Amino acid sequence: MLAAPINPSDINQVEGVYPIKKKPQEYVDADSGEKLMGYIGGNEGVAQVVKIDSAIKDEIKVGDWVAPRYPGSLGTWSEYAYADVEDLVRIRPAETNEIDNKSESSTIASAKTAKMITPEDLSTVKVNGSTAYRMLSDFMQAKKDGKQEDQYVIQNGANGSAGQYVIQIAKELGLKTINVVRDRENFEETKAQLCKLGADIVIKDSELVAGNKSPSDTYLQVLALSKKGLIKLGINCVGGGIKNKTGSIEMAKMLANKSYYVTYGAMSKLPLVIPASFLIFKDIRFVGFWVSQWYVEQPVPKWQEMWQDLGRMIAENKLKPQPMNPIAWPTVSTTANTSSSPQTENTKQSIMGILFPTSVDGTKKTTAKNYFKFY
Amino acid sequence: MLAAPINPSDINQVEGVYPIKKKPQEYVDADSGEKLMGYIGGNEGVAQVVKIDSAIKDEIKVGDWVAPRYPGSLGTWSEYAYADVEDLVRIRPAETNEIDNKSESSTIASAKTAKMITPEDLSTVKVNGSTAYRMLSDFMQAKKDGKQEDQYVIQNGANGSAGQYVIQIAKELGLKTINVVRDRENFEETKAQLCKLGADIVIKDSELVAGNKSPSDTYLQVLALSKKGLIKLGINCVGGGIKNKTGSIEMAKMLANKSYYVTYGAMSKLPLVIPASFLIFKDIRFVGFWVSQWYVEQPVPKWQEMWQDLGRMIAENKLKPQPMNPIAWPTVSTTANTSSSPQTENTKQSIMGILFPTSVDGTKKTTAKNYFKFY
Repeated sequence: MLAAPINPSDINQVEGVYPIKKKPQEYVDADSGEKLMGYIGGNEGVAQVVKIDSAIKDEIKVGDWVAPRYPGSLGTWSEYAYADVEDLVRIRPAETNEIDNKSESSTIASAKTAKMITPEDLSTVKVNGSTAYRMLSDFMQAKKDGKQEDQYVIQNGANGSAGQYVIQIAKELGLKTINVVRDRENFEETKAQLCKLGADIVIKDSELVAGNKSPSDTYLQVLALSKKGLIKLGINCVGGGIKNKTGSIEMAKMLANKSYYVTYGAMSKLPLVIPASFLIFKDIRFVGFWVSQWYVEQPVPKWQEMWQDLGRMIAENKLKPQPMNPIAWPTVSTTANTSSSPQTENTKQSIMGILFPTSVDGTKKTTAKNYFKFY
Repeated sequence: MLAAPINPSDINQVEGVYPIKKKPQEYVDADSGEKLMGYIGGNEGVAQVVKIDSAIKDEIKVGDWVAPRYPGSLGTWSEYAYADVEDLVRIRPAETNEIDNKSESSTIASAKTAKMITPEDLSTVKVNGSTAYRMLSDFMQAKKDGKQEDQYVIQNGANGSAGQYVIQIAKELGLKTINVVRDRENFEETKAQLCKLGADIVIKDSELVAGNKSPSDTYLQVLALSKKGLIKLGINCVGGGIKNKTGSIEMAKMLANKSYYVTYGAMSKLPLVIPASFLIFKDIRFVGFWVSQWYVEQPVPKWQEMWQDLGRMIAENKLKPQPMNPIAWPTVSTTANTSSSPQTENTKQSIMGILFPTSVDGTKKTTAKNYFKFY
């Protein structure tokens, strides 16, 4: 693996509280040689293919960057692993990486602004980046063609990971954004950060809820765009109201007739309260989006097309990948063969991962950790 | 006009409380010859074309049954009227009526079960019949093809006008219906009536709300269909919950993943309360339907195709038109020329309608009525 993030859902899985459970397998402890039951943590990440079975066609090549196709099919917190080709999906072809490597010395003007894409950049686009990309691509009824007036997207939770991707990808698609954030002490700082990413308008949730009764200047600005029918898509990660107020519905009120209002999160844990008139007379379509389900339903070439486009935006410095705190691979005394050409012959292998043991009867042990060897 | 219904919205318009106002015009009182300001009531109905301007092409022919194209463009409570061809839409071609007239003496077997379509039959399909037809046609994700298991539609307000059309049209489309009705003393009677129309399951709202806590046999039957993923469409005219309970959402709970939940009415006047999980994980699409808007957006041939199909169902005794209490045309002393070839030359005409006068300054008078002559 080149990079594998630690997501909250990975932790939940280790804790045994996630709906998708992994099946424990037998491993050998790297230090003691003891046999242990457990599984390797981590559900997403980017790996480079170092060796492939000769029977496999040109679908995946040595040098390609790949990701696990199904969440949970492969513990990504490991240095090397065997995987069936059906369990992998190419996230970036080997050739593309070569182009990247050459571009630094290239004389092409555009190459000057390009950055090299790192495995870390791509290790998280599969969830938040792709969620933002799809919502903007699949539910926007009208797109800007350069002649029309500006088209706006309104979203809440704008300072979240997906929200930040929405701002940047919308900009790239020629759309403007109205970004709703919760009230906070450092609002001006948050606003400045989002504007730096390309946000057009940043508004506090309380300004939206106060609405017509005590309108702020920003509220009046949003209302004017709403009255002109220019707010064409709502993106909601809050779910229903903020406490007892229907803040997320104030957002829906701003939408042009026939817009989609897409819910992809429910941070408030409250249901949406929707007046029937929004449905019948404004024809607002309240729908949901869940990227995991999207991957289940769509063919792999469509995944790759999206990732390629996201990769292009990153390379052109138009998309700043999700920030992360790097954690170095832990050093253990009995590290296995970690050279660039590891033993990958037959079924015997000596590589390293992080094991989350379960007892042999399958019940979870949430605290213990072991480094292990595949065998 | 051959038939023109009196709808609640017509009454509201006469009372001056409907959002769409008609512009008062000057008329002559049939008895006194006095000039009056007012407008002719009635927004829908079926008329037969008796004479047309020679300049008009074959789009509309003498003998065709027509309806006003735009609500309010023509007062339908009148015996004869001039209209621009752009303000009319053909609801049934003259030829079809001739076929009907012949069919009684026809030897074709199918003609035995066929009934003659009357103007009354068609005078109301434009609203309730078409609403039911479109919701079943446009939002049903999977249709029965004879091989699959039965596919179900769940609706509330099933004993309403649109609800009764839903039952019958669904049956014709090969779909089964689960019909939710409010608790009432004569429930068994209502149930029997709906079953006679073709309802498959009739369930009280209270049974649905009580749900898993005290399940009735009918609830368990519906739940079993839900678990098999066979309930593919929700049709809602109630809006949000019954009192403080979310009865309409209990209905949404029964839907298969990716189903549409279409709201076309809001009898409860309460907003819908939608858990975010229905949107994100079940991918239920909460949308609205308003037939007036559908007519605005769709080309006339699509209207006619639908009406033709509804007419066929009526003729084949598969669709019972909305029941109505007929009111005879009032007899007045100075009836105008009502022979089959009225004077329709130039702009002078002597025909009869019902006038709802307004004062000359445009304020409404809700009680006065006058019969009048066009002049």
